[in-house]
Amino acid sequence: MKLVRYGKPGKEKPGLIDADGKLRDLSDVIEDFIPYQLCDAALTKLRKIKTDKLPLVKGKPRLGCPIPGTPKFIAIGLNYADHAAEAGMPIPKEPIVFMKANSSMQGPNDDVMIPKGSVKTDWEVELGVVIGAVARHVSQKDALNYVAGYCTINDLSEREFQIERGGTWDKGKGCDTFGPIGPWLVTRDEIENPQKLDMWLDVNGQRMQTGNTKTMIFSVAKIISYVSQFMTLMPGDVITTGTPPGVGMGMKPPSYLKKGDVVTLGIEGLGEQRQLVVPFKL
Amino acid sequence: MKLVRYGKPGKEKPGLIDADGKLRDLSDVIEDFIPYQLCDAALTKLRKIKTDKLPLVKGKPRLGCPIPGTPKFIAIGLNYADHAAEAGMPIPKEPIVFMKANSSMQGPNDDVMIPKGSVKTDWEVELGVVIGAVARHVSQKDALNYVAGYCTINDLSEREFQIERGGTWDKGKGCDTFGPIGPWLVTRDEIENPQKLDMWLDVNGQRMQTGNTKTMIFSVAKIISYVSQFMTLMPGDVITTGTPPGVGMGMKPPSYLKKGDVVTLGIEGLGEQRQLVVPFKL
Repeated sequence: MKLVRYGKPGKEKPGLIDADGKLRDLSDVIEDFIPYQLCDAALTKLRKIKTDKLPLVKGKPRLGCPIPGTPKFIAIGLNYADHAAEAGMPIPKEPIVFMKANSSMQGPNDDVMIPKGSVKTDWEVELGVVIGAVARHVSQKDALNYVAGYCTINDLSEREFQIERGGTWDKGKGCDTFGPIGPWLVTRDEIENPQKLDMWLDVNGQRMQTGNTKTMIFSVAKIISYVSQFMTLMPGDVITTGTPPGVGMGMKPPSYLKKGDVVTLGIEGLGEQRQLVVPFKL
Repeated sequence: MKLVRYGKPGKEKPGLIDADGKLRDLSDVIEDFIPYQLCDAALTKLRKIKTDKLPLVKGKPRLGCPIPGTPKFIAIGLNYADHAAEAGMPIPKEPIVFMKANSSMQGPNDDVMIPKGSVKTDWEVELGVVIGAVARHVSQKDALNYVAGYCTINDLSEREFQIERGGTWDKGKGCDTFGPIGPWLVTRDEIENPQKLDMWLDVNGQRMQTGNTKTMIFSVAKIISYVSQFMTLMPGDVITTGTPPGVGMGMKPPSYLKKGDVVTLGIEGLGEQRQLVVPFKL
């Protein structure tokens, strides 16, 4: 299933995209995709619904982040060997774990705001993993059973805040609007192999990132297993799994986002995003 | 007010500690201290209740974390000059921001579990700040108006995971049971000056940490203002503000927690915690 949340910010309703690509309303069936509705039992129940009986949604409403109430927004750094090289950092021996503020999460096509004082706002197309069941010390072999689904994420990053202002990376990763997610939460049954997905990102129509999840240093299963050794993964947690080469920081000279830029990105089977870059406003 | 949540894990009810130190039930008045109930208007309404009319709670129930549903659990590192020295790290020019997993939050007297494979589990008594209102780019002068209240926190840390395993600190800070909070959420009207609070921590009755919030490098107001430049602070967010000297890592030789140890800690006006250290279990 391709699950969505549509409507104005804070007023989103649950829906799904049917086999013909049409948006249908699920609000008579489920209140929202809150964390405990992401377990296998709840998703199996949803899957049994005859989608052609669901009301069609008119027009082209805004799409919100497909998962509300995410407890933890976890991120993996430098998870593609080529990207580590362009960032001038060594290939990590273990996954690099950091956290994005869940207040940065937003719809896939909402504007991205340059933070106040930022001169190094950068893009990163990433495969997002949404956790469906409590995961503690799970093995790599079992790890994918804890996944509710996958999604496209732009892991926006302010490089000066992240790297040049001391402390951890979290400061440059959690700014408002720095976590566009969606358009869809694609349930895991529809993704045969999460390590074989093409991904791309354009700025103003120019291709910046081209990659495939097959070149990840640490696989999705490894990441879930690894993180679950340090902290319990909860339903609704999102892990964004690192970006392939082609970020602004790696260009010669480096190039960053500015007002008026349009970022488009997508992952095979997981849908596309489009963000207009806007100046800071309170 | 001294707000508490009492009862079994996951089944806590809201309550308060009255002027005589007695626990009274608030569950007929408020469903829970969910984030939007932490704003000034809601707390003012609570404050008007005649506490002697509230039901007394019998016995000595377990206390839970006084705030449910915290969106972000933010932490400040090396915020006491003497602690930076004992950790062998330079005094930071700007606050060091990292994040603790909100899945680490628990009641003030719940057992602390040594993570699997851990040999360096350490203690840190800290002043916790609970946010009551949305805070974006707030000035240092206004910052304390965004505070719902204060609490005692033990910012438990696995030093090997934090420092020796690559990546950011988050991996060693967010383990299950690593965030005992409470016993109370003390509303800000009861804390005249958050920069004048004695704090202490004992392990097995031996004093390890003695400090006062007056020796913070960055004040509570500065921290709130600073973090709000990078990410929007939401009601229910918790910021733990750094620890004074006396952690296990700073001892010569270093000394860490082991099964059977008892950690007690407290902050002036904010109450005391007591944790039994237990071995890892799934």
